[in-house]
Amino acid sequence: MSTQTKEPAGAAKFTTSMDREIHIERVFNAPRERVWRAFTDPKLVAQWWGRGNKLVIERLEVRKGGHWRFVEHTKEGVPQGFEGRFREVTPPERLERTFEWDGAPGHVVVEAVTFEDLGDGRTRVVTVSLFHTREDRDSMIQAGMESGLNQSYVALDQLLLKAA
Amino acid sequence: MSTQTKEPAGAAKFTTSMDREIHIERVFNAPRERVWRAFTDPKLVAQWWGRGNKLVIERLEVRKGGHWRFVEHTKEGVPQGFEGRFREVTPPERLERTFEWDGAPGHVVVEAVTFEDLGDGRTRVVTVSLFHTREDRDSMIQAGMESGLNQSYVALDQLLLKAA
Repeated sequence: MSTQTKEPAGAAKFTTSMDREIHIERVFNAPRERVWRAFTDPKLVAQWWGRGNKLVIERLEVRKGGHWRFVEHTKEGVPQGFEGRFREVTPPERLERTFEWDGAPGHVVVEAVTFEDLGDGRTRVVTVSLFHTREDRDSMIQAGMESGLNQSYVALDQLLLKAA
Repeated sequence: MSTQTKEPAGAAKFTTSMDREIHIERVFNAPRERVWRAFTDPKLVAQWWGRGNKLVIERLEVRKGGHWRFVEHTKEGVPQGFEGRFREVTPPERLERTFEWDGAPGHVVVEAVTFEDLGDGRTRVVTVSLFHTREDRDSMIQAGMESGLNQSYVALDQLLLKAA
């Protein structure tokens, strides 16, 4: 069974193709090397991943086995921590990492992120997220994953424009 | 499909009851509170978890969201790191934690460990390990998980005897 959510213009394309998975695609108007750096250079990640909120990059060790940990400081409410570990890193094409939110510790998602050079100066980023259980996936969707990610990607568009 | 491996006397009982799972049972000749402490007190864990090898407990934060990390120093070969995070902690009955080995970073297992008071001074420890994929589970079995765990449990028997 494949379902697809309503897709506003410019939004990332979300599909769920099996029980535990979410598949997300988004095209960015920048060359692959630059998009790769925006995902892996702490100074750049800090400018978009937090959707405009202050983001503290505690660790970002972009290599197999390396850990990452980010803390997002929203205007209201307590800081939110996120962390995980890199399974595979193949610049500038692909990375595979785990992801968990402090609010649901030990509920781990495996994310495979592929950076496709579209040959015209644009890059397609494809993320396949495999959750540990279907319940974990559905909780993440309920928690607003899609709008949160779209906010991050809009911030990334702006960063890529600036750096152009 | 349920398969069960050959069970030597005193060995933990291993069964695999679904694609991604391993179910392990073992009875210890000690009261539940004492077995719980052996799993959660760093000074005690250091004496059995490493199967007789030197074990450095870098972190063992036994609470929801807490991290753990152990490094086993074998006589030959490089030190082996293991780590994870606690999802749930209910003393002295149950804990749920993630587990990963540095050699396969980001390949995370969720372990639910239940401590059953048998009412006669003995305790049954039941571990249900849910792997992220069937391949992860089969790799762990291939890597000698069963004999490694049995070595740890024999060391735990000895620790519980000493502390009696």
